Amino acid sequence: MRVKLVVAYDGTNYCGWQIQPNGITIQEVLNKTLSELFRTPITTIGASRTDSGVHSLGNVCVFDVNTRMPAEKISYALNQRLPEDIVVLDSTEVPDDFHPRFSKSRKTYEYRILNRTFRDPTRRLDTHFFHYPLDVAKMNEAAKFLIGEHDFASFCAANAQSETTIRTIYDASVVRDGDIIRIRVTGNGFLYNMVRIIAGTLIKIGDGDMPAAAMKQIIEAANRSAAGPTAPANGLTMIGLEYET
Amino acid sequence: MRVKLVVAYDGTNYCGWQIQPNGITIQEVLNKTLSELFRTPITTIGASRTDSGVHSLGNVCVFDVNTRMPAEKISYALNQRLPEDIVVLDSTEVPDDFHPRFSKSRKTYEYRILNRTFRDPTRRLDTHFFHYPLDVAKMNEAAKFLIGEHDFASFCAANAQSETTIRTIYDASVVRDGDIIRIRVTGNGFLYNMVRIIAGTLIKIGDGDMPAAAMKQIIEAANRSAAGPTAPANGLTMIGLEYET
Repeated sequence: MRVKLVVAYDGTNYCGWQIQPNGITIQEVLNKTLSELFRTPITTIGASRTDSGVHSLGNVCVFDVNTRMPAEKISYALNQRLPEDIVVLDSTEVPDDFHPRFSKSRKTYEYRILNRTFRDPTRRLDTHFFHYPLDVAKMNEAAKFLIGEHDFASFCAANAQSETTIRTIYDASVVRDGDIIRIRVTGNGFLYNMVRIIAGTLIKIGDGDMPAAAMKQIIEAANRSAAGPTAPANGLTMIGLEYET
Repeated sequence: MRVKLVVAYDGTNYCGWQIQPNGITIQEVLNKTLSELFRTPITTIGASRTDSGVHSLGNVCVFDVNTRMPAEKISYALNQRLPEDIVVLDSTEVPDDFHPRFSKSRKTYEYRILNRTFRDPTRRLDTHFFHYPLDVAKMNEAAKFLIGEHDFASFCAANAQSETTIRTIYDASVVRDGDIIRIRVTGNGFLYNMVRIIAGTLIKIGDGDMPAAAMKQIIEAANRSAAGPTAPANGLTMIGLEYET
């Protein structure tokens, strides 16, 4: 059967999702733990291949296995074996042709900025610290230009290889929650580093470097150099995915 | 001059505040950093000697130094030298006879419980995970019995050495904030492990082991064995202190 896992992790100590030669990754730990549990080599396919240092509250992956263990019990068996910075929130059986990346979905990311005079050591792992005042209303106004189907080439890392840079953003908002500014973006897919470049651009707008309407021109330019810098990875959290049924 | 520091820290990697032979402490790092900055041995005196693994958003300490550096600049100089899990939020000159522990103050602690089915790896360092449902209204009702001047001997670790176990609690509340239950307690002082024993007792009440009114009887018993267990250190954060003027 094919099993879908919903996976949360603190990405601080991992080189991202995808297996790679330079360091330990979330996928590698999951593959190893599943292979030990089922005593057969198992390879997971992930929905969002999050970068080094990026966190997740609900990434999705699938794997195939022959087992009599009910799919719902697999999460419990895995959590007993996984390190404490990776937790499986749910395990369910899905159709054999379900692919976490090719099935249509709504993905939500949150970029968190700690915006105050001094750092908060208890939030250093999952917020990006920025000490100049940011105009959240202006950032939110700018974020609204992202909504809709656009060519997001301006928000794609230069070295990325995608067939198309057109994506649909369903919602984008910026709200202040005490000392923390939360940038939330929901879309049908994201280009490489897209949310971090959006965050870097919104910080420049909130800081007064650019007007809110600059966001519209940056999208239209379809050129990476038009947008702001890529904000650091630790501020980014993959919130979750919803698949269309 | 005597300088007062307001200090925030992630206590995960420290053996608490107070210098001790078994491992590195917050006080030790501050003393060392101050001594290097001013090129003379400096010893801080802390307000709250937090335990191993307990966090702070605003603990207070003082030290004496002869320097031409304005007191307000010391926080910036320290933050450039401190590890990223310790941050000085404020530095101000205080009268030479100001003592952070003997001066009258209102101290606030927060104990956080992550109350849901599965752990959240991104909150594991500053919340205590408890997966059975907790009745927050009942916990809040029980917490109200703590308010006032009482003998809190039931909420004092057996090995503690205090002249008196009488303390005044100004406020105590339990609220749910999404998956997180926050127990907030403000008082003129706290016995050793007092907030963690209060949290352990409130968990037993919220879990249905005891009625809310049991809190009143536990206080009256003035006996550690009447209360619940000591909840784990990682859920506890020292929020801050206000001194009476």
